[in-house]
Amino acid sequence: MDYAAGMPIDPRVFEAMKPYFMADYGNPSSSHSFGVSARNALMESREKVARLIGVEKPEEVIFTSGGTESNNLAMKGVAYRNKEKGNHIITTTIEHISVINICKHLQKQGFETTFLPVDKQGVVNPEELKDAITDKTILISVMYANGEIGTIQPVREIGKIAHENQIYFHVDAVAAAGKAPINVEEENIDLLSISSNDMYGPKGVGALYIKKGTRIQPVTQGGGQERGLRSGTENIPGIVGMGKAAEIAKEEVVAEGKRLSQLRDKLIKGVLNTIEHSYLNGHPTKRLPNNANLRFSYIEGESLILGLDMRGIQVSSGSACTSKTLEPSHVLLAIGLAHEEAHGSLVFTMGKQNSEEDVDYVLEVLPGVVKRLRAMSPLTPKEMLR
Amino acid sequence: MDYAAGMPIDPRVFEAMKPYFMADYGNPSSSHSFGVSARNALMESREKVARLIGVEKPEEVIFTSGGTESNNLAMKGVAYRNKEKGNHIITTTIEHISVINICKHLQKQGFETTFLPVDKQGVVNPEELKDAITDKTILISVMYANGEIGTIQPVREIGKIAHENQIYFHVDAVAAAGKAPINVEEENIDLLSISSNDMYGPKGVGALYIKKGTRIQPVTQGGGQERGLRSGTENIPGIVGMGKAAEIAKEEVVAEGKRLSQLRDKLIKGVLNTIEHSYLNGHPTKRLPNNANLRFSYIEGESLILGLDMRGIQVSSGSACTSKTLEPSHVLLAIGLAHEEAHGSLVFTMGKQNSEEDVDYVLEVLPGVVKRLRAMSPLTPKEMLR
Repeated sequence: MDYAAGMPIDPRVFEAMKPYFMADYGNPSSSHSFGVSARNALMESREKVARLIGVEKPEEVIFTSGGTESNNLAMKGVAYRNKEKGNHIITTTIEHISVINICKHLQKQGFETTFLPVDKQGVVNPEELKDAITDKTILISVMYANGEIGTIQPVREIGKIAHENQIYFHVDAVAAAGKAPINVEEENIDLLSISSNDMYGPKGVGALYIKKGTRIQPVTQGGGQERGLRSGTENIPGIVGMGKAAEIAKEEVVAEGKRLSQLRDKLIKGVLNTIEHSYLNGHPTKRLPNNANLRFSYIEGESLILGLDMRGIQVSSGSACTSKTLEPSHVLLAIGLAHEEAHGSLVFTMGKQNSEEDVDYVLEVLPGVVKRLRAMSPLTPKEMLR
Repeated sequence: MDYAAGMPIDPRVFEAMKPYFMADYGNPSSSHSFGVSARNALMESREKVARLIGVEKPEEVIFTSGGTESNNLAMKGVAYRNKEKGNHIITTTIEHISVINICKHLQKQGFETTFLPVDKQGVVNPEELKDAITDKTILISVMYANGEIGTIQPVREIGKIAHENQIYFHVDAVAAAGKAPINVEEENIDLLSISSNDMYGPKGVGALYIKKGTRIQPVTQGGGQERGLRSGTENIPGIVGMGKAAEIAKEEVVAEGKRLSQLRDKLIKGVLNTIEHSYLNGHPTKRLPNNANLRFSYIEGESLILGLDMRGIQVSSGSACTSKTLEPSHVLLAIGLAHEEAHGSLVFTMGKQNSEEDVDYVLEVLPGVVKRLRAMSPLTPKEMLR
């Protein structure tokens, strides 16, 4: 149950990609017939990704190497291009590490960032956002949903505020795309980052929606592919894979979301009911259908991960990007948890391959693992061990 | 014969990648067992790429999304990190469009660039390079070989000059890797860009060699993967594919180079002997084993491409990155060709799937195609048409 760190690709996606690895390996920039086939594949994939996120004009979607690159292009591209208008960016304390580090980088280049706090359930307050706007604000960047605690933001409302103030609105939807239905036009979004790998597509591919008219400049120089905004030979097999993944996600997002939220709720309820001193991190209802972030007092997430891994259950202690450091998750700290609470948290992310039996198995195994670890932990109050 | 624009991946590469798409889809940053398998795959691929280019310490190799990204990271990363030392960069007029555009971008940020001219065969003169060095020079960037005209540069000598002057030496080896044997240590190279797709590996993956001790900063902010220099979830299937491609290239580069140079020489000799007013662009011997760039007076490359495509022969009119514009190749102009000469040039790039029969077929078809096009061309002197 660790779909957040790495997802298998959908077999249908793999089948769609296969011909483009070997037989159909042309370059869309070439003049001859091989090039034509690659150009068509690129165009169709762009249309499929556009449809997933409610975009009418496919040319507003460009392909990148992944979510991190999409975020870099969106934020630096808008910041540098609009710096004569202002130098202030608003974001939140629970963004993905790439957004946070991009802001820190921009601060060294003379930009200023407001990191909005979130409430205990991880939600941004639109009123606080409004108050943070100055006449120098050029960009607001708020994630669609947090991949770690699952909380979904009031994106449409934030976008409305951004547009009332003539500010560009960027949304990092890497954790949400394919899991929650997204419509950039209805939700007032100017730039939206998504990643193929987080929706059963191949790794190494992402996309950025850029609303027509958005003032942005490239961050990579080269051959001018992707309307000059993303140079580099197009990764056609990867792009075809992302297109297929988007097509499948568009068809399945509602039904699969319903199925997963039932599993999620069963898991959450089961854990909270059977394990004392266990808690849910993030919002109880405004959350990704596949995410359950659970906290257990007195024990370390890392020991829990190893204990569960030995029983065949893969989970994560938080963002895959920060788990190699032993620092507690910045997201969990931002929702007000103490260091030891953050360390005792586990992220369950479910996907297509998970069934009710998996949830039952976790509910069968987890209480015993927690109990054993608590018995060994010096933090556990003695009266609990009787 | 258009291996420069897009190569099929080697079936062995595809087999090596396959398990990492579906069964083994872990994230190297995760703690559990899936993560371990991904970490091992990453490490082994790094070793394989290191061996291809003569690197002793695999950690000096980092993976990127391709040659363009590698060039951007190498050049901007070194320029920004060393700007207190100087702001002058030396490169050549025949570099890949990404290197040229990176330099133009850096010029807007206060850097200065010297674009060294080349001789009629496309070779940089090391003495001219020496003369261009100032006390502000922080970076020299010269390609290993030009993918369009095939010319190989005196890299070792240029590197020696760079190091005698304490200047970093970056080499764009995208067109050369896997075709010419490269040894970064013997050839005095500090940074070397390579691309998977140009050596029968998958698209969307590249690597950058960064010699230990090189002062460089990242150009993408994020989760700090690849020693902080290239953030973004590692594209494990792609990286495994590039590793396998590098392993195969290392084994086969010498023998395959010999085989291809024989085909190349047969093609060149055959064309020059049978088609009047045909010429070779680039150096006659210091050239990539798989490249023949041929020029035909009085006709347009685009018409030739279409004429040959109808007969089942794919060729290119120049760099795939610029062929969509109708501008003549900057490389051909840099070696002193007139616009109409540049337009009448064709690039044949051969690879594993080409045999002597292919060369024979080209030699059989090409003279007739050239003749027909010349008959229709207003530029052709009347006496040639008799």
